[in-house]
Amino acid sequence: MKRRFLGIDIGGTNLRGKIITEQGDSLDEKKIPSEANMGIFRLMENLAGFIKNFTAEKISAVGIAIPGIVDTKRGTLVQAPNIANTKNFPFTEALFERIGGAIPLFIENDAACAALGEYRVGAGRGTNSMVMITLGTGFGGGIILDGKLWRGENGFAGELGHMTINPSGHLCNSGSRGCVEAYVSQVAIKRIVRENQELREKLSGTEESALPERLAELARKKDRAAISIWNDFGSNLGVAISILVNVLDVKTVVVGGGLSGAWELFIGKALEETEKRCIGAEARGLQIQRAVLGDDAGVLGACYIAEIGLVERF
Amino acid sequence: MKRRFLGIDIGGTNLRGKIITEQGDSLDEKKIPSEANMGIFRLMENLAGFIKNFTAEKISAVGIAIPGIVDTKRGTLVQAPNIANTKNFPFTEALFERIGGAIPLFIENDAACAALGEYRVGAGRGTNSMVMITLGTGFGGGIILDGKLWRGENGFAGELGHMTINPSGHLCNSGSRGCVEAYVSQVAIKRIVRENQELREKLSGTEESALPERLAELARKKDRAAISIWNDFGSNLGVAISILVNVLDVKTVVVGGGLSGAWELFIGKALEETEKRCIGAEARGLQIQRAVLGDDAGVLGACYIAEIGLVERF
Repeated sequence: MKRRFLGIDIGGTNLRGKIITEQGDSLDEKKIPSEANMGIFRLMENLAGFIKNFTAEKISAVGIAIPGIVDTKRGTLVQAPNIANTKNFPFTEALFERIGGAIPLFIENDAACAALGEYRVGAGRGTNSMVMITLGTGFGGGIILDGKLWRGENGFAGELGHMTINPSGHLCNSGSRGCVEAYVSQVAIKRIVRENQELREKLSGTEESALPERLAELARKKDRAAISIWNDFGSNLGVAISILVNVLDVKTVVVGGGLSGAWELFIGKALEETEKRCIGAEARGLQIQRAVLGDDAGVLGACYIAEIGLVERF
Repeated sequence: MKRRFLGIDIGGTNLRGKIITEQGDSLDEKKIPSEANMGIFRLMENLAGFIKNFTAEKISAVGIAIPGIVDTKRGTLVQAPNIANTKNFPFTEALFERIGGAIPLFIENDAACAALGEYRVGAGRGTNSMVMITLGTGFGGGIILDGKLWRGENGFAGELGHMTINPSGHLCNSGSRGCVEAYVSQVAIKRIVRENQELREKLSGTEESALPERLAELARKKDRAAISIWNDFGSNLGVAISILVNVLDVKTVVVGGGLSGAWELFIGKALEETEKRCIGAEARGLQIQRAVLGDDAGVLGACYIAEIGLVERF
């Protein structure tokens, strides 16, 4: 029988699951509320039930995309800012207990999964090495080198949002100053709008999650303050991309996540800044691409994590 | 017969050559003036003569460490700021012509060679992945991932000196603003001293290459302005290290090059800043080590480049 892999993406709102065959064909897809805001134990119950629902079909391995810092070797969740009680939580072990064991489980950071998804079947298809930047609540990342996800010695690699781009700059949620996430993320946009009296008034009453879209609408209507914010957003993104390209010399950078909806408002400045700051820019053949898989990147990446885990560890 | 590898390190002053066996034993070592300041053609003549001098002994391959941006696949020197007429110079081809051909030649950036040297037989021995930072005239780098030098898609990876740490900061020789090299290098120290009236007077008449050492002497004698400059130097180095660790999650960072002679004056601040800016710092087990091979790192790394080149390409 052909092998089948189940990928699950843990979101703030939903658990999304998908089964693919080893040829990459999608077989089944489901979605239930994650209730992640109710803490890790509720999430684990929901996750276990969700997995059991799928396993009427024979599954060879499960891959799980988690919004947090993951120790893939030990199977622990080191920290997840948006799920309570997760500090060094033994994720794989706790899930094994609940599902009664027999399926190999692999966990990975969700932005790393998204990178793998775009690499295999999305905007990075056919490239040998790439970086994916996910612009959402935060600034997530994943790195593919020579066809493989690079996760580093502790599984912490790709914490791209916490690259410093301005040592004495704004305070980030991480506690350090001037992280790129403090300039290029939904959280950053909230701060920037709050600090700008004119925009604060124009956008008053908007929920945080809707702010980037509303700000993009304003910019498209030629609001000068809004245009200027997206320009700065693009420049700061370009600084971050240039750091990554100078260090890693990848050929492809893929930019995705919810905020990439404002693509045409920031990409020009991002390219300009990248080119200015990359050594030997003209010789590199660098491609900066918009992600194409949307929300599917994470869940597809999780399927591939299951596949890779099975090949590498068994 | 056992295979032997010749490594050559091209310096501003000297060509240094060394032969090692495949067991890593050193057999022979020579040095002649490089005359690199007289341009690439004189350098190629000297290099060809130097190689012929060694090949009385049977050599399996030659590795050459070059102070510039190198396209290792094509064998070209993309640019070398300190050697005239080097823009896209066909280095390997030109050298083959002069030595009459039969030995496999491999070229590599000198800081990458130094990283490989420290990784194999120096401060990075036994680690799986590391970054080496070389603090000299500029800020050089080399990256080892999973035991292999990571050179990227064009061979440009590891241009660590041109990571932006302050987008609106000082102009770097690269033409972009706020590169770490503009803060943490001999060139940077020259600028910083020139901008500081008190130190400019105390150090007037000192040659640029001797400035870091004189500035270190002042700091060791408790000169407050000098201490403060080394503190800033350390903090900026720490910012750069934190970026690399957040992105790559290596376990070991090795710091070498001439300016590492002032180690005790900057390392405290560098560690402090690194810890503050690395996500999950306490869980990483990060080691920041001083390089141990000194000037030998580059020439030894060049020997290993010859060995690796022979294994991978023939």
